[in-house]
Amino acid sequence: MKTEILRLLRESDSFVSGQQLCEQFQVSRTAVWKVIKQLQEEGYQIEAVRNKGYRITGSPDVMTEEELTSLLDTRWAGKHISYFDTTDSTNNQAKAMGDAGAPHGTLVVADRQDAGKGRRGRVWSTPPGGSIAMSILLRPDIEPSKAPMLTLVMAMAVAEGISQTEKLDAGIKWPNDIVLSKKKVCGILTEMSTEITCINHVVIGAGINVNLTEFPEEIAKTATSLRIEKGEVIKRSELIAAIMKRFEYRYEQFMQTEDLSLMQEDYHSILLNREKKVRILSPKEEYDGVALGINEKGELLVRRENGSVEEIFSGEVSVRGIYGYV
Amino acid sequence: MKTEILRLLRESDSFVSGQQLCEQFQVSRTAVWKVIKQLQEEGYQIEAVRNKGYRITGSPDVMTEEELTSLLDTRWAGKHISYFDTTDSTNNQAKAMGDAGAPHGTLVVADRQDAGKGRRGRVWSTPPGGSIAMSILLRPDIEPSKAPMLTLVMAMAVAEGISQTEKLDAGIKWPNDIVLSKKKVCGILTEMSTEITCINHVVIGAGINVNLTEFPEEIAKTATSLRIEKGEVIKRSELIAAIMKRFEYRYEQFMQTEDLSLMQEDYHSILLNREKKVRILSPKEEYDGVALGINEKGELLVRRENGSVEEIFSGEVSVRGIYGYV
Repeated sequence: MKTEILRLLRESDSFVSGQQLCEQFQVSRTAVWKVIKQLQEEGYQIEAVRNKGYRITGSPDVMTEEELTSLLDTRWAGKHISYFDTTDSTNNQAKAMGDAGAPHGTLVVADRQDAGKGRRGRVWSTPPGGSIAMSILLRPDIEPSKAPMLTLVMAMAVAEGISQTEKLDAGIKWPNDIVLSKKKVCGILTEMSTEITCINHVVIGAGINVNLTEFPEEIAKTATSLRIEKGEVIKRSELIAAIMKRFEYRYEQFMQTEDLSLMQEDYHSILLNREKKVRILSPKEEYDGVALGINEKGELLVRRENGSVEEIFSGEVSVRGIYGYV
Repeated sequence: MKTEILRLLRESDSFVSGQQLCEQFQVSRTAVWKVIKQLQEEGYQIEAVRNKGYRITGSPDVMTEEELTSLLDTRWAGKHISYFDTTDSTNNQAKAMGDAGAPHGTLVVADRQDAGKGRRGRVWSTPPGGSIAMSILLRPDIEPSKAPMLTLVMAMAVAEGISQTEKLDAGIKWPNDIVLSKKKVCGILTEMSTEITCINHVVIGAGINVNLTEFPEEIAKTATSLRIEKGEVIKRSELIAAIMKRFEYRYEQFMQTEDLSLMQEDYHSILLNREKKVRILSPKEEYDGVALGINEKGELLVRRENGSVEEIFSGEVSVRGIYGYV
């Protein structure tokens, strides 16, 4: 009921009468009042005027299951939400839910991760209140070898969600770092459970620096947050809803062709490495080149100094900008 | 209580009095008698002598953690064992343990699976007492694309374990069915959890028909058990220990080259499809050919009627013998 009341208040331009809420949910005025009270305690600014009813005048940065649900405008992405104040890692939660049979599109969100994961077992720190830790569970009927492309799909969705809701110029450092002012604002970790030739489930986690105002010294030069860039507090739930909307769109594009060809152009338009010098650090060799863009499989095309073009598979190598982080 | 009574009987050199069991477990003599009866029905030879008590004279097929541990002669394979009388699926258990950080070589064994899994979500029925359901957790530092070869490594180990302990002529139907008298006696299911370019863990499950004496009608013509083939009850724990021993050996061979080249010859020596006519059913086409053997990646080489040789990736296609199951 809380979710529904919240949605009604949001969707209404004026006051919603207590009577109306009582009738709609078949509950007493006291019950309605209790819900309003809870919402206010969670930080919503709700005006209560005798003979008029309730009106929402402000929702700060509230991240709850109800808030998320009331904001989501998707068909399947995030239609099932599990919200945690604290969890070990949203990817771990989503994987466990995947093993237990949770449906395609299940979204796990946490305010705080105490064992957040970066790639290859690295730590991704998520202090409370300042970040988004979110993971979506997917069950695509594709070959396991195609799943790595979904990392780029999520990168695209996060960049677009940030650009749309915050009017910030989010770019991508191939394959999947989201970058503002040449600093990293989001990391993405894709994991999957497979049989030999089919996928049980894929989990894509995104950790976004939202309202953080400072960073540990070792990453201070390469990390930023949306709040720092925009100069104001960001509403995380709105951002998550926007990302889910974009993700659903981009995922469906991906599934049409089972590759990135339909979003290749848009990806290029925000790909910061494009036409930039890059240094490729692979287990075998190290060389400089110019990043041309991605092919339809999401591999980075790099023109070496001898003119040949390499196709670089995501994650196999480290790509560094020769000047600065990007 | 059954496990405890069994343990007491096995640990005692002489008779254990009914009175002693009653007192120890705070139950009636009838309750003790019922348990003894159950044990006898399960195949234990238990002597009951008035005024003396119960004595175990034979335990043809005991499968417990203690029994397994005492039989294992390996360095890491099965050094950590989780035994379940009943579980949903040993693969599921091993995956959950893998997610929770269990070490390489952890072995999960169950007497009965109530949601045992075959490939692509099919059911693999495991009634109690008659089967082995076992899954090993591995953490190989190899590319995810190489993990499918581990299925063949397990197939090799199971076939060798059966041949050694039971003196039965176990063969392999590519890629990983274990076959006796042209009937299937074991199925293998490999699952893994990965990031884009590295493996979190691999779980390989083997379901072996051991002491079953009959099968559901729909598989009666293509399934058999070790007991049927050998004509006597098999000791499952001994067989598991033998398989683990062989698995450890074959896995280390695999890791040396990260392919199957070191076991290719031995695999060929028990590969039933070799030089046999096979029908290949792929999503794209259906054709007949002659199976030549495997390459070092474990792909089946099939010579088509036009003379060209196809390399068939495990699981992509169905391979059927033109005459019979193999």
